[in-house]
Amino acid sequence: MKRRFPLYLLVPLLIALISVPTGFFYVDWNKSGEGAGLYSRDWKPEAIFAYWNPKDFYQSVDTVVGVFDGEQCVQCHQGVTPGIVNDWRKSRHAKPSGQQATVYCSDCHGNNHEDLHLPTPDVCGSCHDKQHGEFIDEKRYGFPSHSLAMERALDAKHFADKPKAEVTACLQCHSVASKCDSCHTRHLFSAAEARRPEACITCHSGPPHPDDETYFHSKHGQLYLAEGENWDWSKPLSKGNYPAPTCAYCHMDAGKHQVADKSIWQFGIKQVNPLTAGNIVKRKQWIDLCSDCHEKDWSADRLKEMDAERKRAWKKLYKAESILKSLRSDKLLFPSAKQRPFYPMNSESDLLHYERIGFFEGQASAFYNVSALERDYFEMWYFENLTAYKGAAHGDASFIKKGHEAMDKSLKLIQDKADRLRFIGELENNIKNDQQKYAPEKLWKNGEYTLYNRDNN
Amino acid sequence: MKRRFPLYLLVPLLIALISVPTGFFYVDWNKSGEGAGLYSRDWKPEAIFAYWNPKDFYQSVDTVVGVFDGEQCVQCHQGVTPGIVNDWRKSRHAKPSGQQATVYCSDCHGNNHEDLHLPTPDVCGSCHDKQHGEFIDEKRYGFPSHSLAMERALDAKHFADKPKAEVTACLQCHSVASKCDSCHTRHLFSAAEARRPEACITCHSGPPHPDDETYFHSKHGQLYLAEGENWDWSKPLSKGNYPAPTCAYCHMDAGKHQVADKSIWQFGIKQVNPLTAGNIVKRKQWIDLCSDCHEKDWSADRLKEMDAERKRAWKKLYKAESILKSLRSDKLLFPSAKQRPFYPMNSESDLLHYERIGFFEGQASAFYNVSALERDYFEMWYFENLTAYKGAAHGDASFIKKGHEAMDKSLKLIQDKADRLRFIGELENNIKNDQQKYAPEKLWKNGEYTLYNRDNN
Amino acid sequence: MKRRFPLYLLVPLLIALISVPTGFFYVDWNKSGEGAGLYSRDWKPEAIFAYWNPKDFYQSVDTVVGVFDGEQCVQCHQGVTPGIVNDWRKSRHAKPSGQQATVYCSDCHGNNHEDLHLPTPDVCGSCHDKQHGEFIDEKRYGFPSHSLAMERALDAKHFADKPKAEVTACLQCHSVASKCDSCHTRHLFSAAEARRPEACITCHSGPPHPDDETYFHSKHGQLYLAEGENWDWSKPLSKGNYPAPTCAYCHMDAGKHQVADKSIWQFGIKQVNPLTAGNIVKRKQWIDLCSDCHEKDWSADRLKEMDAERKRAWKKLYKAESILKSLRSDKLLFPSAKQRPFYPMNSESDLLHYERIGFFEGQASAFYNVSALERDYFEMWYFENLTAYKGAAHGDASFIKKGHEAMDKSLKLIQDKADRLRFIGELENNIKNDQQKYAPEKLWKNGEYTLYNRDNN
Repeated sequence: MKRRFPLYLLVPLLIALISVPTGFFYVDWNKSGEGAGLYSRDWKPEAIFAYWNPKDFYQSVDTVVGVFDGEQCVQCHQGVTPGIVNDWRKSRHAKPSGQQATVYCSDCHGNNHEDLHLPTPDVCGSCHDKQHGEFIDEKRYGFPSHSLAMERALDAKHFADKPKAEVTACLQCHSVASKCDSCHTRHLFSAAEARRPEACITCHSGPPHPDDETYFHSKHGQLYLAEGENWDWSKPLSKGNYPAPTCAYCHMDAGKHQVADKSIWQFGIKQVNPLTAGNIVKRKQWIDLCSDCHEKDWSADRLKEMDAERKRAWKKLYKAESILKSLRSDKLLFPSAKQRPFYPMNSESDLLHYERIGFFEGQASAFYNVSALERDYFEMWYFENLTAYKGAAHGDASFIKKGHEAMDKSLKLIQDKADRLRFIGELENNIKNDQQKYAPEKLWKNGEYTLYNRDNN
Repeated sequence: MKRRFPLYLLVPLLIALISVPTGFFYVDWNKSGEGAGLYSRDWKPEAIFAYWNPKDFYQSVDTVVGVFDGEQCVQCHQGVTPGIVNDWRKSRHAKPSGQQATVYCSDCHGNNHEDLHLPTPDVCGSCHDKQHGEFIDEKRYGFPSHSLAMERALDAKHFADKPKAEVTACLQCHSVASKCDSCHTRHLFSAAEARRPEACITCHSGPPHPDDETYFHSKHGQLYLAEGENWDWSKPLSKGNYPAPTCAYCHMDAGKHQVADKSIWQFGIKQVNPLTAGNIVKRKQWIDLCSDCHEKDWSADRLKEMDAERKRAWKKLYKAESILKSLRSDKLLFPSAKQRPFYPMNSESDLLHYERIGFFEGQASAFYNVSALERDYFEMWYFENLTAYKGAAHGDASFIKKGHEAMDKSLKLIQDKADRLRFIGELENNIKNDQQKYAPEKLWKNGEYTLYNRDNN
Repeated sequence: MKRRFPLYLLVPLLIALISVPTGFFYVDWNKSGEGAGLYSRDWKPEAIFAYWNPKDFYQSVDTVVGVFDGEQCVQCHQGVTPGIVNDWRKSRHAKPSGQQATVYCSDCHGNNHEDLHLPTPDVCGSCHDKQHGEFIDEKRYGFPSHSLAMERALDAKHFADKPKAEVTACLQCHSVASKCDSCHTRHLFSAAEARRPEACITCHSGPPHPDDETYFHSKHGQLYLAEGENWDWSKPLSKGNYPAPTCAYCHMDAGKHQVADKSIWQFGIKQVNPLTAGNIVKRKQWIDLCSDCHEKDWSADRLKEMDAERKRAWKKLYKAESILKSLRSDKLLFPSAKQRPFYPMNSESDLLHYERIGFFEGQASAFYNVSALERDYFEMWYFENLTAYKGAAHGDASFIKKGHEAMDKSLKLIQDKADRLRFIGELENNIKNDQQKYAPEKLWKNGEYTLYNRDNN
């Protein structure tokens, strides 16, 4: 017997048939603004964005007219910008080996001076296929990864709501997704350069990811600093070629342009189970790598210590979260989400006004427009936690100590402030009228990261 | 008809005739104390000042007697202090080119061992006239400038009132005005050395001017760190000679010993209009300089970004100032200027006891003897603001981020504390008697930066 | 006349006869647990401890079976771990001069692959007798010293009570007592390496001992950074051989492996009289050393400035201590020692529950499980004080400034919080009942650094 289509499913089906395409259409429409990314209608690019994200924003200079071949570019620029021509002359592009043809300016920038372009990774990839393929492959692993750095920055909720002068600074490092010269500086484009740690530190330094500091404090970094100038940087990054490892030796071993597939603890901002089946496979890769120089046991033990350090850090972080959440339940966070400027891409009319505490409630996008106590936790979670993490990962004991001492201090501070808030809360109940007089909302509501920017960015 | 001298102008004229010379005389008399500078009668030099400010304080060692010629100095000191003789032997002073005569120890220090002197810039200037002239020319541009560094330090109001042990540290860097070996280390006095960034970082590091950190984080600094040891430092600082710029390349281009005349944003402690006619001329100089390697548009856009960053920073700073000023109006700053030790060079009998907030009220000289909240603002203004500024100026996005995040946090903290002060203020009105009991003034009045130092420094 | 034994002495005598051996026995028994040191029964080692303290914990890997001679080790490990074999080949162990025999892997690690050992300092000492003797001699001077670093870490009261994940990080640096390759990295074991500052900075960086930062900011460090790669590091550390000093040049002059005997101010955590007879002898040694390059007067003056800086720092520290002690007297520290988790190796049943303030009451072991205000003082004393100290010691004026500014700020903060505590104290007396309601003890008692760790470490 044929079964009839169950009529009671018709309504949800219709809703789905309408809403899903509408949603896709809305997102698509949203992306077609003057800016870029998911909120492209809410901001406009600054001129400098052309250089951080050339694919979307670069416009050729048109002060020179004409179509030129490579030799002509070089001749003229030898006088105009001799430094970059000198760099190029030293590069393999200018002195190709064997059958290869010289790679001229025009091969990457184009010939027509009124329609030049800044080379994006796919331009480099037209010759350096393997490296480009590995680089793009990172996308499969989600963020953080170099090749997603730009689009995830532009899609971040706070991108449109934060003042342009500040988000511009973000794009400088996130431009690593848009151009290869973040690591292989133009116009030498040297592999040897990118094997050295300095190629990474322009971006990987300072909180929240003190890779710079922790590497250079480690024994590995110390050996590099003292003796690196005598190492042969033309050699590939493999076993026996270097007296001590650099960033690239461990994270891009054998020159593989893929740093995401071996990552266990990832960015350190949410707790990760390091002992899933997949992570145990990665762990073996790490132990093999460390064993280029160290005992296998030593390598395994170091990773176990890192597990222990991470577990310890999360114990502290969860404790702080629970203090904050308990204050939230008792409505003692001051100013509350209702009293202060709203979160990025939210508005006063939104139904949900609550304090976001911890990674899963979306705190990452909410480190401003929060109360002083929530900000304290943000710093504990984002800066101090990652200080300890990178110390553990790179063999810098001083940063483990620094991070944990800072977290201890923050936890104490949060407890202390929580006590005060509870105490003051009691008092306030007794003097409600007085409180009305000084009307704290007025002071707080006037936030900097609000619709103002959305309209003017 | 002849007009009579208007008699009613006689009194002010007489007052002016008496008071102006009296004022000059008083300032002059004030400068003739045992110390130096405007408050020389209020402090005495420590022995070490002889080395930071030799013009005013150096006294020759008299353990060796005799008058010696240059070769004799060298012979004897080869045994006593071989390191400095080795340095000299490598210098152009020891191996002059062409017609030039050897420059011996005695040419700068004198021949009579009982009456040696430490060479001040004018001693060096007797040969290096062009460089000395440029160095002195900085004075026209006011402070900050290297050649005014010592006298402005000594003339600072807090110099006499701060404990000697602390101001001594200041003079170490400010001695750059008093001797050329701050940058050209004795006794090699190398131009090549001063072209490298390390020559600057002994002083230009850490808050409030993290030039060190921001340069080395930038792509420019990264290239220097990785490859600088292979560059030819004997070349002059001009277009095409260096693969990346150093401090001196940009701020002393072509070796000009004048860093003040191209300065737009200056020290960053007061808001500057970057678009005055004069500053647009300077901006063109900067764009030309950047264009040694970069596109003109790129260079202009980077400077525009810096304008935007500065404007943004001042928006935050002024907001904090307004919170503080509003508390001051309501007499809620605790302890108030009347309750605490007075400002440098003030005294209890002064009529004006008010909290100085912001640059124009003289906060720069008042970062101690203030309340906790004013100190918070000081840090925001002097350290966090300048962190962002130097990040923007030197191409280190991480310091822009760090500075602005710190300012956001400070602003939040200041708001939070202001709320508490207002709330507590209400409470206090209800329990005035209790407040008398714990008499906060006693705790605060016993300040460290007071007349005690003025009498004993 | 014979005098009778005074009977009233019998009881104390008997108590002494019983208790002293019992005490010794107890301490001895305590040391025989699974851990090491004075509290060895209260913790168990992690696997990684084998590498930080091989004497107590290393167990040989047993994956390879057999007894091998030195050449066989090298042959096999050339394939397994080529990097360390390459290092060894470059070392003097592989290329001994004159009559000396080659030092093979097996000479230090043993021949039996199932019973290998990690070489402790006495293994190195069997050839390098002079250096080892000097290193051990440090013990006479007490802690801090390199050769006592491990045992004093293990004997610290908080070692057993702190989570293992954190104390592991401590041992990484404290392992300097257990193995010579902290400074002479395996397997090159180069004297030249240890003459360079990088050999020290892996441990000597960051708070509380920013030796790294202060040296590199100093003129000495600046010269090293800019030109060190061209110095001849094979030369011994003595007068005339180096254009600027390194850590080892000053602290281990002429290569003496004893850094404790010349120390005047020691670790900087308690006030020291720099003008005792003994310290004046040491001062002369320092002045002689500085006079390798500098005027004797200059050298003496610099040390005097350091005396002044230290005196100044202690004035601030004692003032903060007195504020805290006064709050303690008035029972206003919150939470009090009774309300919070107890100090390391104490327990709830102990009679003495009081807040330890300052070095002599044992604050060093008590930087957690304290109230927020005590922690503020801990930071002032341990981090900010030592920032200024190292700045003064190494000629980095910026760190003197930074340290004293931080201490000023902390003192202000402590005063401010103390005022608030007094004020709130008054309020609390009026609302005792309300206070009971929010029962702060519950929040605080749940400490992390307690018996939990002692049972599980």
